Amino acid sequence: MTNAPRFPLNAWYAAAWDVDIKRALFPRTIAGRHIVFYRKADGAVAALEDACWHRLVPLSRGRLDGDEVVCGYHGLAYNAQGRCTFMPSQETINPSACVRAYPVAERHRFVWVWPGDPALADPALIPDLHWNKDAEWAGDGGTIHVRCDYRLVLDNLMDLTHETYVHGSSIGNRAVAEAPFETTHGERTVTVTRWMTNIEPPPFWAAQLGKPGPVDRWQIIRFEQPCTIAIDVGVAPAGTGAPEGDRSQGVNGYVLNTITPETDGTCHYFWAFARNYRRDDQALTTQLREGVSSIFKEDEEILEQQQRAMAANPDRVFYNLNIDSGSMWARRLIDKAIAAETAPSRLQAAE
Amino acid sequence: MTNAPRFPLNAWYAAAWDVDIKRALFPRTIAGRHIVFYRKADGAVAALEDACWHRLVPLSRGRLDGDEVVCGYHGLAYNAQGRCTFMPSQETINPSACVRAYPVAERHRFVWVWPGDPALADPALIPDLHWNKDAEWAGDGGTIHVRCDYRLVLDNLMDLTHETYVHGSSIGNRAVAEAPFETTHGERTVTVTRWMTNIEPPPFWAAQLGKPGPVDRWQIIRFEQPCTIAIDVGVAPAGTGAPEGDRSQGVNGYVLNTITPETDGTCHYFWAFARNYRRDDQALTTQLREGVSSIFKEDEEILEQQQRAMAANPDRVFYNLNIDSGSMWARRLIDKAIAAETAPSRLQAAE
Amino acid sequence: MTNAPRFPLNAWYAAAWDVDIKRALFPRTIAGRHIVFYRKADGAVAALEDACWHRLVPLSRGRLDGDEVVCGYHGLAYNAQGRCTFMPSQETINPSACVRAYPVAERHRFVWVWPGDPALADPALIPDLHWNKDAEWAGDGGTIHVRCDYRLVLDNLMDLTHETYVHGSSIGNRAVAEAPFETTHGERTVTVTRWMTNIEPPPFWAAQLGKPGPVDRWQIIRFEQPCTIAIDVGVAPAGTGAPEGDRSQGVNGYVLNTITPETDGTCHYFWAFARNYRRDDQALTTQLREGVSSIFKEDEEILEQQQRAMAANPDRVFYNLNIDSGSMWARRLIDKAIAAETAPSRLQAAE
Repeated sequence: MTNAPRFPLNAWYAAAWDVDIKRALFPRTIAGRHIVFYRKADGAVAALEDACWHRLVPLSRGRLDGDEVVCGYHGLAYNAQGRCTFMPSQETINPSACVRAYPVAERHRFVWVWPGDPALADPALIPDLHWNKDAEWAGDGGTIHVRCDYRLVLDNLMDLTHETYVHGSSIGNRAVAEAPFETTHGERTVTVTRWMTNIEPPPFWAAQLGKPGPVDRWQIIRFEQPCTIAIDVGVAPAGTGAPEGDRSQGVNGYVLNTITPETDGTCHYFWAFARNYRRDDQALTTQLREGVSSIFKEDEEILEQQQRAMAANPDRVFYNLNIDSGSMWARRLIDKAIAAETAPSRLQAAE
Repeated sequence: MTNAPRFPLNAWYAAAWDVDIKRALFPRTIAGRHIVFYRKADGAVAALEDACWHRLVPLSRGRLDGDEVVCGYHGLAYNAQGRCTFMPSQETINPSACVRAYPVAERHRFVWVWPGDPALADPALIPDLHWNKDAEWAGDGGTIHVRCDYRLVLDNLMDLTHETYVHGSSIGNRAVAEAPFETTHGERTVTVTRWMTNIEPPPFWAAQLGKPGPVDRWQIIRFEQPCTIAIDVGVAPAGTGAPEGDRSQGVNGYVLNTITPETDGTCHYFWAFARNYRRDDQALTTQLREGVSSIFKEDEEILEQQQRAMAANPDRVFYNLNIDSGSMWARRLIDKAIAAETAPSRLQAAE
Repeated sequence: MTNAPRFPLNAWYAAAWDVDIKRALFPRTIAGRHIVFYRKADGAVAALEDACWHRLVPLSRGRLDGDEVVCGYHGLAYNAQGRCTFMPSQETINPSACVRAYPVAERHRFVWVWPGDPALADPALIPDLHWNKDAEWAGDGGTIHVRCDYRLVLDNLMDLTHETYVHGSSIGNRAVAEAPFETTHGERTVTVTRWMTNIEPPPFWAAQLGKPGPVDRWQIIRFEQPCTIAIDVGVAPAGTGAPEGDRSQGVNGYVLNTITPETDGTCHYFWAFARNYRRDDQALTTQLREGVSSIFKEDEEILEQQQRAMAANPDRVFYNLNIDSGSMWARRLIDKAIAAETAPSRLQAAE
């Protein structure tokens, strides 16, 4: 492993589910930055560097006073723009006294933060996870803290062959490992499409469909750089036209994933499962959330094993199989994004 | 953080409360040195390097035999001067076989050790904490192990503004953060003087004084390099002449502190509270010790947060406020002491 | 401590007791190599690198399928020679896809593995511990994981003077520390011989012999490089000719030890105690195994202290006493073995 940057900074990263940020100080490390989040009186989210300008004590250990954060050590106060508004025992405030404020946005039920250059923080770049907040779709999700490089989670999701081996008792079966797939890519996205036609459905999908007989099953994995993956999944009775575009006889879900690097070797994994059938069945929503959660526990365990194995074998490289074409392209887009923001500073240094 | 030395070696450091060293082996790391302490038959304290000359096994895991320490592995014995007096299976003892013996002294109810050049270990340099063993004063104290650079504890004590924010429920109030103060310094000392006249006393001092009405309150912080701070604190009824020198109507205490570096990032914090009123009230002594102890727990928590924040932000420097003048001078005296003992060897190396 | 290799790779190392390797995946780190062991259908032991060629996930977290190991992540399969026999979603298997297979052998109730050059793995080099599987001898043993450099265990065993100080309540007494001894060595072995004639037997040996009166006691320590030590121990009634070769009136045991480096600072310590008296007394076998086990616990504690002391005092060297002649010779043979396999590559690098 090298010391090369492992993630771009000029990107929107999911920091939390929207409901997790309240009128209280909420510390979280995002892309190596220690940040304290909170809601202001008007409901908008603020994000400040979580280290007092004076002595570095985490501001998150202090208290919220109106829309200002008061340090718990010497009482320095900062407004939501990060400017110091109070210093003890002195009337003049050092004009340079401030902590960094980060651009934030709320969308698709997540709070997003931009750790890089604020001037580039265009909300149009927030990844598309609209299924998570759309009247046509119902679902819920959760957050997992995984002790691995966020890219290992991406690798895992870009190839679903592993379902056969890791999740054999629920969603995996031999058909996944055997079905052909196609990989395409654009400037910011990679798509892996796999159709398994006329197969016996795995237990999970048989139950969702609720109809006997063979099915056509699809998995359309869409990566949006640097770390968001929306997977269009579902089954329809075999021969009812799903591969050709008519999914009306089937059931459709989206596995939504955005994986935010915390440090070089840890990440926050936000996920949800949204469906377009039996939308009012709240019991089903809970059942699906718990089911996906236990499937992801299996992934978490194997990903942490992989991370430890990489640390124990620092000289070893990864070899790639045909199934890895999706993750190879995803990593290429990430590397390109990292290169785009590190190259200029190298040029500056050379001048 | 750099690799520069963080503490002088030519200094007396408190190693333990006197009662903690008995006729038994007591290991403690002082200024990075692993040392085993014990009392000899005559009651004097000995301090030896805690690593057998032969195989480095800690002597403190062996046993005391008269005034000698016997290694628990192969039985090598050392006298209180560190000279080896027994080797197994051989009659001639290698004359170079010895462990280092450190100068020690007992004063002010503490055992002091000098980790540097023994030739410079002048007992006159032991810091003044005489209030801890003086018939005119009564009190007690304790020991805290803090996972932070000892200088963060000094910073904390050299500015009591933090009382308002960290200890607001006991000794802190707005008056401390608002009162003016004066900082002076000498060759080995720094003094910060703060008088708060005609103020409402905080709960703690109101109870100690036992008289109603406003008070004049004082905090006179005296640092003696490298790591001892005696704080003269008290209140008297407002207008009875305390600022001018007549404290006869008031109550007076000394917060005694000496903070011994253990490693670069940990320290032993020895503290006591001595008072000149109700000296025979043993219940009050206990109550004060417990009260100060819980106040210091609040400091310990915030100092360890600060240490972790420094480790997480290695490139960040500290900014200083007006309130930091005392700690800035204290650190200058420490840096001067460190430079004084490191500079000559640099010259030697250059010759 | 330097970064020089601490153990040779071209050596047979005990990896496990034979009964510990079953028809199941058994991971163990040997000489810094992560290895998965298992028995094939024919009972022979296989040893593969414990990291999938594809993504490094430990194969030991997968499953055994016949004589093949199937990775738990994407289902890649490897045969006992380490060759990949299955890849998901592709028919052609990359011919370079394999994991390393290590030479293994079973002898003296242990499974041995050779982490170095397979071409040099001559079974004739397996250390002699035949007493562990010999009808003339009875006994049993165990495995200890010690957090120290394996050479500290060797040092410990090559000089039994420490019995007096570490094991004073069982096998140690003053006579061991006082008796003269002789050290000899060959190309691959070092022998330390100590006879204590006409002495009071320590409690352990008095009980084994079951006869009153003074004894002649022997300890003949035989080291075979790099890390095996067989100790011939026993007592006979004084004056019955044991030193001259007639042990018929006495009792004889062998303390068998082979200490496999796991990492630079940890090791697997395999030991057994075999005896040539009361061989059918299974209760005695159990009692001896438990007794030796508790004696070795005392060593384990002191060795881990020593390891921590070495880490805390990285600049300190070991000094040697007369009693250390055996361990000095053992370390010389180890260093020679290490030099023999590292020197050629240095020459190659220089060309």
